[in-house]
Amino acid sequence: MATHKLLLLPGDGIGPEVMGEVKRLIDWLNSAGIAKFETDTGLVGGAAYDAHKVSISEGDMAKAKDADAVIFGAVGGPKWDAVPYEVRPEAGLLRLRKDLSLFANLRPAVCYPALADASSLKREAVEGLDIVIVRELTGGVYFGEPKTITDLGNGQKRAIDTQVYDTYEIERIARVAFELAKKRKNKVTSMEKRNVMKSGVLWNEVVTQVHKREYADVTLEHQLADSGGMMLVKWPKQFDVIVTDNLFGDMLSDIAAMLTGSLGMLPSASLGEVDVKSKKCKALYEPVHGSAPDIAGKGLANPIAMISSFGMALRYSFDMGALADKLDQAIAAVLASGLRTADIKSEGTTAASTTQMGEAILKEL
Amino acid sequence: MATHKLLLLPGDGIGPEVMGEVKRLIDWLNSAGIAKFETDTGLVGGAAYDAHKVSISEGDMAKAKDADAVIFGAVGGPKWDAVPYEVRPEAGLLRLRKDLSLFANLRPAVCYPALADASSLKREAVEGLDIVIVRELTGGVYFGEPKTITDLGNGQKRAIDTQVYDTYEIERIARVAFELAKKRKNKVTSMEKRNVMKSGVLWNEVVTQVHKREYADVTLEHQLADSGGMMLVKWPKQFDVIVTDNLFGDMLSDIAAMLTGSLGMLPSASLGEVDVKSKKCKALYEPVHGSAPDIAGKGLANPIAMISSFGMALRYSFDMGALADKLDQAIAAVLASGLRTADIKSEGTTAASTTQMGEAILKEL
Ligand SMILES: CC(C)[C@H](C(=O)O)[C@@H](O)C(=O)O
Ligand SMILES: CC(C)[C@H](C(=O)O)[C@@H](O)C(=O)O
Repeated sequence: MATHKLLLLPGDGIGPEVMGEVKRLIDWLNSAGIAKFETDTGLVGGAAYDAHKVSISEGDMAKAKDADAVIFGAVGGPKWDAVPYEVRPEAGLLRLRKDLSLFANLRPAVCYPALADASSLKREAVEGLDIVIVRELTGGVYFGEPKTITDLGNGQKRAIDTQVYDTYEIERIARVAFELAKKRKNKVTSMEKRNVMKSGVLWNEVVTQVHKREYADVTLEHQLADSGGMMLVKWPKQFDVIVTDNLFGDMLSDIAAMLTGSLGMLPSASLGEVDVKSKKCKALYEPVHGSAPDIAGKGLANPIAMISSFGMALRYSFDMGALADKLDQAIAAVLASGLRTADIKSEGTTAASTTQMGEAILKEL
Repeated sequence: MATHKLLLLPGDGIGPEVMGEVKRLIDWLNSAGIAKFETDTGLVGGAAYDAHKVSISEGDMAKAKDADAVIFGAVGGPKWDAVPYEVRPEAGLLRLRKDLSLFANLRPAVCYPALADASSLKREAVEGLDIVIVRELTGGVYFGEPKTITDLGNGQKRAIDTQVYDTYEIERIARVAFELAKKRKNKVTSMEKRNVMKSGVLWNEVVTQVHKREYADVTLEHQLADSGGMMLVKWPKQFDVIVTDNLFGDMLSDIAAMLTGSLGMLPSASLGEVDVKSKKCKALYEPVHGSAPDIAGKGLANPIAMISSFGMALRYSFDMGALADKLDQAIAAVLASGLRTADIKSEGTTAASTTQMGEAILKEL
């Protein structure tokens, strides 16, 4: 059995708690002889700042590059609101994405039937919802230069951020979206603001070309990102795969996640380019939710998004699709049994702490 | 009685139809001696392109600068998808905003009680919703330079858009938001992405300073734009006034509008700096909805957003608050009577065309 190297980066807030439940799962898979994971742990975000005054240490970056997959919790919190911009908690996550070239962020927005009522949307609008947002993750306004604040004198400052996209960056993320759509409902919706942004014009042009050249059998639609956002709120089920840039992807995937009523349940995968020789790619898996500092340390956090992110790792990094399916089924079964963490509780369900939820899923598995 | 000069720019798609109902209203106000409006009409968007190969002619721009208020319909449609970027329909609107320095875009998101069920959100989440998004409208990524597509050779192009914000631009929009909040529920939520964007850092800093210096009695909260978007979907009633930049404002105001279920009903005002001498400001009023080319020319469009935008003109440009109130009441009464255009029809209501709706509101008034 092959040994897989994992780097666990719990981060801040509820990160360590939900990561604890993944650790429990990994230990069990190892001891039961189902898989062989070698795990190491590092610091990222505020935790790294508190220890080393950086958002991630060089040592941990080296470990991340060396690992077969990085399992990431969450970063940030009011405690670090005033730290210098360069070492703010989020910088650690952004550096991991950039330095590992994790350009493809897959964010499924799935509505768990047992949770449809937790959505602020009407049941009929979200029941059965199953879409994926494919977000470009290493380009755009997140990383473009110049990115500066300049003092102009007279009490005036000027802030600049730069959105930059090259053809190849759009091509490769478009391919990820089309490939994914082929395994799903065969439809891609590309979103940009071509009526205002030059990057939107190029985005539209390149996605159209890739489609024509390589994926003419997949249905492709284009939407302006603002009306796309509206359509997402009005009738999300019209979509299958949505492909969009880094900043629109940030906004739209969060909104899509919230629509489902299952925010505490949603995983994400950030993938790099597939190496021609090893057929492998760098990867980082993280829950869609944030560090939720307000409930940290109280055993209230829902570990399902984190566990499910590990499930995506099994599927995409380690070719253990069958095991990932079983994990998904175990999660569904535990939910069906009525067990709920605080974020998803409703009348007639049984309250569970972070640990109780993790244990129940493991037991079911 | 003072004479007010209006420039009507119907634009494309359903623009001319809904503008027709405003024209009817203006004619009646004039003939009944209630007000004295002098109206002129111009071309913008695709209509201007078809006539003059521009998105707005210099003549119409001059008229817009000369008018006391511009009443704007909607622009764009598939017919002009392939026209050169510089003369695309939207360019006309963007030039009006920029050249008239209309930096403050006010977008109320109100849920009409009679329409709460038209929302994809649960009734309890939107019933009674009344928030305003104050969007910065002449800065940010919409206008920053460079804004280019460069051919890099080898089949590669590079697209660049630039987000630029200066202190004074953030200060003046923050003041608009705080002033508005003082007349409402006294709460402002500022949204940016300071964890990723330098413009977000400056935005946050300047809004905080303006608050401390001039509006310490107003409640101020800061939200990251992505989680702000989530909160908007989850429980929009937690907000009063939201202030945000041009691009986030574009996304968030459209989403807020869609939440209400009243998209075809929502007006907007775009205001310039108040002139110290005349105490007046340049202004443009337009519906939040777009040109809806699919239903254009069929008498299906809902004229309420357009009429209500004219109502905002009465209030903000012509100091006719009492008349604006009466107009709002007339709209509410017509809705309560069960009259509905196609976009808001539901069981037990009476179908109305664009014209029938306009006439009914006028009759009620
Ligand atoms: C933490 C933050 C930098 C990050 C982002 O903006 O990408 C987060 O919102 C996300 O979506 O993963
Ligand atoms: C038509 C378009 C240029 C415009 C914008 O992006 O600002 C529209 O979406 C709006 O919100 O007024």
